[in-house]
Amino acid sequence: MKETSSERPNSQESAEYFELLRFPTVGTDPLHLKDCVQCAMWLKTWLEGIGAEARLLLPEGGGLSATPPVVFGERKGDEGMPTILFYGHYDVQPPDPLDEWLTPPFEPTEKEGRIYCRGAQDDKGQFFAFLCGMRAFFASHQGSLPTVKFLLDGQEESGSEGMARIAADMNDRLRADVLLVCDTSAAADLRPAIIAGLRGVTHFTVLLNAAESDLHSGRYGGIVPNAAQGMAELMASLHNPDGSIAVRGFCDGIVPPTDEELAAAETAAMSDGDYAKETGVEPVGGEHGLSVTMRNSFRPTIEVNGIHSGYGGPGSKTVIPCSALAKLSMRFVPGQNPSTCMALVERHLRQHTPKGMKLRIEAMTGEAPAMRLPLKSPVFRLAADVLGEIDPRGAVFQWDGASIPIVSTLARVSGAAPLLVGFGQGEDRIHSPNESFSWRQFMLSRRWAAGMLAALCG
Amino acid sequence: MKETSSERPNSQESAEYFELLRFPTVGTDPLHLKDCVQCAMWLKTWLEGIGAEARLLLPEGGGLSATPPVVFGERKGDEGMPTILFYGHYDVQPPDPLDEWLTPPFEPTEKEGRIYCRGAQDDKGQFFAFLCGMRAFFASHQGSLPTVKFLLDGQEESGSEGMARIAADMNDRLRADVLLVCDTSAAADLRPAIIAGLRGVTHFTVLLNAAESDLHSGRYGGIVPNAAQGMAELMASLHNPDGSIAVRGFCDGIVPPTDEELAAAETAAMSDGDYAKETGVEPVGGEHGLSVTMRNSFRPTIEVNGIHSGYGGPGSKTVIPCSALAKLSMRFVPGQNPSTCMALVERHLRQHTPKGMKLRIEAMTGEAPAMRLPLKSPVFRLAADVLGEIDPRGAVFQWDGASIPIVSTLARVSGAAPLLVGFGQGEDRIHSPNESFSWRQFMLSRRWAAGMLAALCG
Repeated sequence: MKETSSERPNSQESAEYFELLRFPTVGTDPLHLKDCVQCAMWLKTWLEGIGAEARLLLPEGGGLSATPPVVFGERKGDEGMPTILFYGHYDVQPPDPLDEWLTPPFEPTEKEGRIYCRGAQDDKGQFFAFLCGMRAFFASHQGSLPTVKFLLDGQEESGSEGMARIAADMNDRLRADVLLVCDTSAAADLRPAIIAGLRGVTHFTVLLNAAESDLHSGRYGGIVPNAAQGMAELMASLHNPDGSIAVRGFCDGIVPPTDEELAAAETAAMSDGDYAKETGVEPVGGEHGLSVTMRNSFRPTIEVNGIHSGYGGPGSKTVIPCSALAKLSMRFVPGQNPSTCMALVERHLRQHTPKGMKLRIEAMTGEAPAMRLPLKSPVFRLAADVLGEIDPRGAVFQWDGASIPIVSTLARVSGAAPLLVGFGQGEDRIHSPNESFSWRQFMLSRRWAAGMLAALCG
Repeated sequence: MKETSSERPNSQESAEYFELLRFPTVGTDPLHLKDCVQCAMWLKTWLEGIGAEARLLLPEGGGLSATPPVVFGERKGDEGMPTILFYGHYDVQPPDPLDEWLTPPFEPTEKEGRIYCRGAQDDKGQFFAFLCGMRAFFASHQGSLPTVKFLLDGQEESGSEGMARIAADMNDRLRADVLLVCDTSAAADLRPAIIAGLRGVTHFTVLLNAAESDLHSGRYGGIVPNAAQGMAELMASLHNPDGSIAVRGFCDGIVPPTDEELAAAETAAMSDGDYAKETGVEPVGGEHGLSVTMRNSFRPTIEVNGIHSGYGGPGSKTVIPCSALAKLSMRFVPGQNPSTCMALVERHLRQHTPKGMKLRIEAMTGEAPAMRLPLKSPVFRLAADVLGEIDPRGAVFQWDGASIPIVSTLARVSGAAPLLVGFGQGEDRIHSPNESFSWRQFMLSRRWAAGMLAALCG
């Protein structure tokens, strides 16, 4: 959509933002580890520039060399002022499918008030706009200042395992009153939203093996089992015809939303028509007979993120594929234990593995449970006031279908009240080709940061 | 298996064979059209070298530039002698997956009496050994000679469409008494086999589209339909839990084998144990409760040759794939009409297309019906005598689960009796990485050619 607002960051802010975007920080891909380290160094220097002590942290023990560092910074404030823990992540999703990008995925390109680049929004754009707001606040604020601790993760898109271990080690050093996270979406038409819940997530890879090699579909057709067909049957077995999850026990113990939560969620919800416009397809995924809000905010999912088996090139190749790979992710809601659910899914997959085939489950990451926050908390009331000044429509509550696995860990370790407010929109296409972020969103995030810090000092 | 026989072709024959193998003639891939044309020129020159008039043929009209030529040659014989039409194909299957090759796929490499190369057997090795046998026969035979017409196809692996159109145009020019084809397998332990039946084949590609782009599996999970999951469900819907084909009407009208045919087929059959040794997997594909011979020789199949959708790289990518592709092939038996079956499958796929998704069916090729030949034909009796001299065990009859789509067309146009005898073995791994052919097989094919030509002159 064409951006009419003429508001935009100053030249220093936009130049720094573009520098930050140019680092191809695909945290999940070892080939990009160097880019992640360089980006982390850049952020360390930036934080020092606003008066913070900063350094790069790597988890104790195993696999350091393969782990993007966490950038930790602390800007000491005045006695008796609150302590704020700010979390963001500089890693991004892989850019592929590359051929669907209209501009280079790691070269920020401005068009009609929007910046196109992998990470333009998720999360470099959102957290950097927030940092710019903080810097402005520190520069202009009269009177006592809060202490701010910064944690910039390099593995959020792949489970934040390093961050989790570091948080456990740092323990008290992360103590804070409020945990601020700027990595979520606003409601329709950029109406501000306070996140009252997040789904949990676990990812894993399924491998199926049959014959020793691909075999001729004529000579062996009807004889040798087909791994592509087997994987199709295995993936199809995960859901019932009504779209519900078919894994026995997976949904046991789910805590449904209260009437107040459901009502609040539905008021902030997009219409089915808006979803169709935004995505190009009718919103008919998930369980039949439930609203989109219910399905996305308060029900779990098992998604196939990819399937690859056999021939996919030009023309035809009459083989019986000998192996197949599938990548999956699960989203959890309160009442579900991720490791229990993973065990149930593994049992289901083993029970449904077609005759003659070998199943392997690999690369399991995440195991993050869902989070649901009390609507009546004081920090929510404070945030609602600040957001009410930014937007006369006032803030709504949302229960995000996405996950920020590390948030519940950080909340526990820091003892802080989580406050997740972000300004994402569906049109930003995060995780997709041509991801973008508008100056209008950037400025909202910037204003939100300054306003909330002021409110916490008031 | 280690080859003990010291027999091998003479140096000229093996040198020519290696030259022929080095052309990467992937007929289905436009990028290899030039290689196909160069290989065809080489074959034309070779045929002229044995006294044939030869030229390259392209079908009239459409898509010439994209079609590998057919090599046609004719070597005039004496009055009153029979006319033989010989068919082989110089195109090969794509070599991928490339990383599974132990030697370069288009550089013939000899190890323990076996030659490793794409096309070493299918069909370059088989037809070229036969051509060498013919050349030897012409050089040594006293007395009248038959007329031999040569047709070397460049598109057999992808449906022989050009060949079919050329055959229709040439019509009477292809008239012959016997149609000789050397592109099939011998029975276990290289016992000679006469092919009494072939399955038909059709290939096609299925494309499924949902959203406009891949979308975040958290923000849209439970809302947007998943094309990878949809394709899995679509492919799974093609078969019943007992392995039988679930497409309504697909198996109607199938002509079962006679008791004599079934008995003959079972005598030549490999054991389940041998199949397990050969392929590395239990032979549990296809319909439950039928023997491997019944499933492979006398029942149809629908095989998924490949499925590709979404992310398959390192780590994880939490997307809902917006599109999915599947490549399929169907094998037919007598009584099935390929275009009727294709229409039934298309109807089935449309009926089972998940809500919200768009289905496209593309790249349909083949439409070749099955073939079954009468066991009592005189040419079969003649062949049985020749093969009895080559191997004291004598020949068996086989009904090949594979397809040579063009054979029934050529039989009809030429009026000739088809005679398919080849010396392939499972260990040759045709269509797979590390395809190979042994000098022992090469020499059997060579001797068979010379012997059968002599018998036809006798």
